Amino acid sequence: MTADEFRSAGHALIDWIADHLEGSGDRDVASALAPGDVRAALAEHPPTEPEPFDAVMADVERVVVPGITGWQHPGWFAYFPANNSYPSILGELLSAGLGVQGMSWVTSPACTELETLVLDWMLELLDLPTRFRSTSEHGGGVIQGSASEATLVAILSARHRATEGAVNADGDTTRLVAYATDQAHSSVEKGLRIAGIGAERLRRVDHDERFAMRPDALATAVRADRGAGLVPFFVTSSHGTTSSMAFDPTPEIGQICRREHLWLHVDGAMAGIAALAPEHRAVNAGLELADSYCTNPHKWMGVNFDCTTYWTADRAHLLGALSILPEYLRSAAAESGAVIDYRDWQIPLGRRFRALKLWFAIRCTGIEQFRSMIRGHVALAQELASWVDGDDRFEIVAPHPLSLVCLARTGETTEVANRRTDELIDGVNASGRAFVTRTVLDGRSVLRVSIGARATTRDHVVALWDLLRELA
Amino acid sequence: MTADEFRSAGHALIDWIADHLEGSGDRDVASALAPGDVRAALAEHPPTEPEPFDAVMADVERVVVPGITGWQHPGWFAYFPANNSYPSILGELLSAGLGVQGMSWVTSPACTELETLVLDWMLELLDLPTRFRSTSEHGGGVIQGSASEATLVAILSARHRATEGAVNADGDTTRLVAYATDQAHSSVEKGLRIAGIGAERLRRVDHDERFAMRPDALATAVRADRGAGLVPFFVTSSHGTTSSMAFDPTPEIGQICRREHLWLHVDGAMAGIAALAPEHRAVNAGLELADSYCTNPHKWMGVNFDCTTYWTADRAHLLGALSILPEYLRSAAAESGAVIDYRDWQIPLGRRFRALKLWFAIRCTGIEQFRSMIRGHVALAQELASWVDGDDRFEIVAPHPLSLVCLARTGETTEVANRRTDELIDGVNASGRAFVTRTVLDGRSVLRVSIGARATTRDHVVALWDLLRELA
Repeated sequence: MTADEFRSAGHALIDWIADHLEGSGDRDVASALAPGDVRAALAEHPPTEPEPFDAVMADVERVVVPGITGWQHPGWFAYFPANNSYPSILGELLSAGLGVQGMSWVTSPACTELETLVLDWMLELLDLPTRFRSTSEHGGGVIQGSASEATLVAILSARHRATEGAVNADGDTTRLVAYATDQAHSSVEKGLRIAGIGAERLRRVDHDERFAMRPDALATAVRADRGAGLVPFFVTSSHGTTSSMAFDPTPEIGQICRREHLWLHVDGAMAGIAALAPEHRAVNAGLELADSYCTNPHKWMGVNFDCTTYWTADRAHLLGALSILPEYLRSAAAESGAVIDYRDWQIPLGRRFRALKLWFAIRCTGIEQFRSMIRGHVALAQELASWVDGDDRFEIVAPHPLSLVCLARTGETTEVANRRTDELIDGVNASGRAFVTRTVLDGRSVLRVSIGARATTRDHVVALWDLLRELA
Repeated sequence: MTADEFRSAGHALIDWIADHLEGSGDRDVASALAPGDVRAALAEHPPTEPEPFDAVMADVERVVVPGITGWQHPGWFAYFPANNSYPSILGELLSAGLGVQGMSWVTSPACTELETLVLDWMLELLDLPTRFRSTSEHGGGVIQGSASEATLVAILSARHRATEGAVNADGDTTRLVAYATDQAHSSVEKGLRIAGIGAERLRRVDHDERFAMRPDALATAVRADRGAGLVPFFVTSSHGTTSSMAFDPTPEIGQICRREHLWLHVDGAMAGIAALAPEHRAVNAGLELADSYCTNPHKWMGVNFDCTTYWTADRAHLLGALSILPEYLRSAAAESGAVIDYRDWQIPLGRRFRALKLWFAIRCTGIEQFRSMIRGHVALAQELASWVDGDDRFEIVAPHPLSLVCLARTGETTEVANRRTDELIDGVNASGRAFVTRTVLDGRSVLRVSIGARATTRDHVVALWDLLRELA
């Protein structure tokens, strides 16, 4: 493809994307394709001759678009929001166009320094503790690819601190114990497995009726483990759990962690971004006690995946866990101590210039527009919850402080109610007009309505409510 | 940013990228900026009002471009190639524009099925064993973000197999031992640390004068560890080491691994792609004995980072190590067994639609163009090596089967030679016309010339050679 062909194909693709996103509500949310349909509709073998870009885009239209699920659709109420936005798409495009590596400062100084800067911007925008700032004595921030990687990095930092670094050499993790509720994200267990801690050493601390961790239960569990000769080392406090948007009480949990010398990781992947709006800053309560924290601009801030902002108040143990310096990665800049080499802050070595999309989103969208989007989604969720509350065929099964409403069908027995809820979920998802996710809370089937797509308006929530009542 | 503003900004950015890439040779390769310069030139606080896209692009021109290192520059001879290409940039743009998640089949069927298809295409293009195919009984492929993650996933799969899955529960890794030469990539040690194995349990197997693993030394080390009651479990065989492009002898190593029941991971991150050209297929010799393999289209195939193709011949242990299924991730499609959920094939949960950029690159570039680029780079490296060989101020210090030439200054003592080589490297990098990386091979300072940028022609290699002689 020549530069001129790129210009013409690129202009066409930009227009195609605008048409696609503006028209997302005209398609079904869920793909109607069955397993194997996409592959069967495409060439089974690679071409021997180059093909024109138009031929590839014809396949995108014919096969790929009918095969995607509508994460940008206004009827998207499933999982969590994963919004893109026009400025962010351009940031990703520029990153691909520049084609630089940010593994070390020297491999592209701007890639590192812009990232450090926007991480400090985010601290300011979210009103987070200054101990996470790049200019603080012990802290700093970095973009991770996902909250899962942020959790793993936190576990590894904690493991390094608890073993005083010995784990790097002898790998001995046999006495370490971690704590979270059974509502914490699956990446906590996955991270502990990866790190060689094992699921048997993850204590599932009791939660209360709001699905939030009970601090007294944490304190008791830690005491019991110490009594058994084990080494408690890591606690995940979830700010907005995936299932029900529950908030663990970090101010109390943090006190226990301080007293017991446990690494406290706060997982605010979904909810933390709400702090862009000052009236929602309670979503980050207690962070002054956290050793690490993450939230996802790629969820509720219009920055296309992947962009997890991760901060630590203890970068020495992060670096201790992850830095390795072969000869071919040495540089005078790094050895002077004047620069950050982000390869030592993450699992992989290589890294894209992801700061661009966050920087573009903040500058070209403007903070007020993020705030009004978040406020709008929260208001819609509260309105939906009030409608559910007023209809005795439904009930609300968890607190709904933000944009997630967990509801269920009522029924004479749990079994009947669960069957009705499951049928309701299948009915909504088969409609093509909306897409929701099922979860289970204390044995009950639950229909999650996560309101957060950029294109979702009140009309779409009203339509969902009409659909729910019709199906019930 | 409205859709119309996006169209106009997007068209401008596409043109800007074409101009930037076509003009890359007109700029200096290395950034002249000092630590802190980039940040100091940008707004220290986020804006309160949205800014026009032009204002952001003005900062890109003024600050970001002077702050990047020229990975796409024709004078790029450092580290390894990390080429982008026009079709691949458009694939990344489309991925950002669609904004879908590929964590499960159901979250976007096309994202999963296209990835499976292009991984099978790549097997065909590289002539790799069919036991890695998605349609094979035990194998399959996936796109990882980097070769580091591929190595970690291989370690975790091996750990799961060696412990018969017990590691997931009890985390016990205390007796496991891994093997690689000291030339293997730093991600091997990093992955072992992350996995709780520890660096003391990484045996650095002796290499020969070509920097390739000695199979007899591997066999001896394994025997000694078994004798000491330890559990050998994992070997990395490097096909094209980072320092010197050495090839470990996988056919012999593989026989030992079979006999001793060790997981064999072949790291062909850089060199494996050379097999696109049939005459270079020896770069993948012995793969029929490997349990897992990776190579990077994001290095030498014009697919912008991140795109590591990873295959395993034993997906059961990969899934055993990495799959976790909370309620909110269940789907009928996954439970039927008819689909792949790639979240279980990788460290993170979320994933982008990365198959698009590989699919675009293969279809719009065409396989012959990749082949001729690879052949061209290899021929230039051989030519450069012949010039070095004929000049007694220089010497070649490692075999150069592909596109990397490792050279050093000669000198009365190693100390003198090393000082001269280090000065030479500094001189080249200060010139602005070329950029190289230093490494150390058996105590000697080495100037690596990695020829692989898409824009590099014979003129650029001649200019580098002139510069080297002038500086000497």
